[in-house]
Amino acid sequence: MTFADTLQDRIAKTSPVCVGLDPALDKLPEGIDRSASGILEFCKGIIDATKDIASCVKPQMAYFEVLRAEGMNVFWDVCEYAHQQGLIVIADGKRNDIGSTCEAYADAYLSSDSPIDALTVSPYLGSDGITPFIDRAVKHEKGIFVLVKTSNLSSGELQDLPTGDEAVHEHMAQLVESWGRNHIGKNQLSCIGAVVGATYPEEMKYLRTLMPHIPFLIPGYGAQGGTAKDVAHGFLPDGTGAIVNASRSIIFASSKKDWKEAATKAASTMAKELQEAFTK
Amino acid sequence: MTFADTLQDRIAKTSPVCVGLDPALDKLPEGIDRSASGILEFCKGIIDATKDIASCVKPQMAYFEVLRAEGMNVFWDVCEYAHQQGLIVIADGKRNDIGSTCEAYADAYLSSDSPIDALTVSPYLGSDGITPFIDRAVKHEKGIFVLVKTSNLSSGELQDLPTGDEAVHEHMAQLVESWGRNHIGKNQLSCIGAVVGATYPEEMKYLRTLMPHIPFLIPGYGAQGGTAKDVAHGFLPDGTGAIVNASRSIIFASSKKDWKEAATKAASTMAKELQEAFTK
Repeated sequence: MTFADTLQDRIAKTSPVCVGLDPALDKLPEGIDRSASGILEFCKGIIDATKDIASCVKPQMAYFEVLRAEGMNVFWDVCEYAHQQGLIVIADGKRNDIGSTCEAYADAYLSSDSPIDALTVSPYLGSDGITPFIDRAVKHEKGIFVLVKTSNLSSGELQDLPTGDEAVHEHMAQLVESWGRNHIGKNQLSCIGAVVGATYPEEMKYLRTLMPHIPFLIPGYGAQGGTAKDVAHGFLPDGTGAIVNASRSIIFASSKKDWKEAATKAASTMAKELQEAFTK
Repeated sequence: MTFADTLQDRIAKTSPVCVGLDPALDKLPEGIDRSASGILEFCKGIIDATKDIASCVKPQMAYFEVLRAEGMNVFWDVCEYAHQQGLIVIADGKRNDIGSTCEAYADAYLSSDSPIDALTVSPYLGSDGITPFIDRAVKHEKGIFVLVKTSNLSSGELQDLPTGDEAVHEHMAQLVESWGRNHIGKNQLSCIGAVVGATYPEEMKYLRTLMPHIPFLIPGYGAQGGTAKDVAHGFLPDGTGAIVNASRSIIFASSKKDWKEAATKAASTMAKELQEAFTK
């Protein structure tokens, strides 16, 4: 079963909600130790609290890397735990390199024995920096999400530059569609996905037409300002083909002892908001 | 002392040679165990063999990450060892993200207690993905090298797209110069550097004029095809301001028991080639 088929099945059973695991030490709630073991406890708690609602979790690698090898140990434990709970695990590492180095990254995260289902990747290097990831993804039924139009304020500095009749991110979108079209599952979606920010709804609408076979990973919901209405354009006409990430608004919904209950509630509210945006 | 000043001093005492530590398990020489501890032994051996010739080492993070937490443990040990030997340590991670996540990456690698002097970063996200690195670099006298024009064949797919009267990588070069100009040391070079591939000498010549205050990290020498004549244009008129990386041609110069002697010889030959390219 291809990554996209697994993803679609999981979304159908749960929701398009992706819970971003950004365990910043200084934001951990009451009762959680500010250490690697505290991060493990916290992430497991968030996974337990949201696994019946969310389709995916997205551990943000920087927050684990900052604790060096000990943090990476916890990163792999968190991925393993999330995988065991049935969640789709997207490692947010925005990795990028070329040749055998790119292969090493692909082997690190998308090998057959990895609990990670997909990895985010950054496209500045062109297809040399993408093809090794695609090879491994296809071989091991994993996926990648390529940055196309990101949610941040300065994303336009490079991504919106005009080139010919289009913006750089539109050109990138067509490259992603061309890379992805050769690797389509039974549901007509590719194992090559795209990151498209919730904070640029007009761009998202057009990008959906440029990338009809590409699953979207949509960051920027909640704390960054994106709404359910904003992200609706990222989905296919049948309401599938995209996942929407929220991090802080779910995992730090409460800084008190009730953080798990607050996370369940926040994820549940988000799932309902997304549902309603499609039925209206 | 700023990163650029430290770098210039070190180049003056040694050479512009940067030894890329790409310890691919399947390429380790005779007598080295294909394991995390083998990688540590190998990297320490290469450091010992080249520390009197090279100014910098550039551990390529992918080859450590592929061994998960154990590999990252070795990565930090290698950085620490290289730092103790007086080498400038450039972590090649091509990290990139925004906001507090970008801060976490910066804290992970450019903190005051880190043995790493500089980190490579990827610019697709715009200044939101660069500023947190710059803040930490300035504060802790560290550096970054931003990908501008990379050495690989497909680098042009995005980097050479025309925008207005220039290419995307030229536009990026001007951004890097503008970011770097505010953080210049006594030698007129910034702690913000640029990655400019040896395989595009004409582009490099022009990029040097666009980024007069920016140290260049030049990959693509040796195995990738760049020559001493090709990289000469990346240096400032006084023959400083750039380091040239070679990985495979030095570290895998021999697959036999004489790999250390072969590495010393290869690094030494490269230093001489670079020297000659300036004195001719």
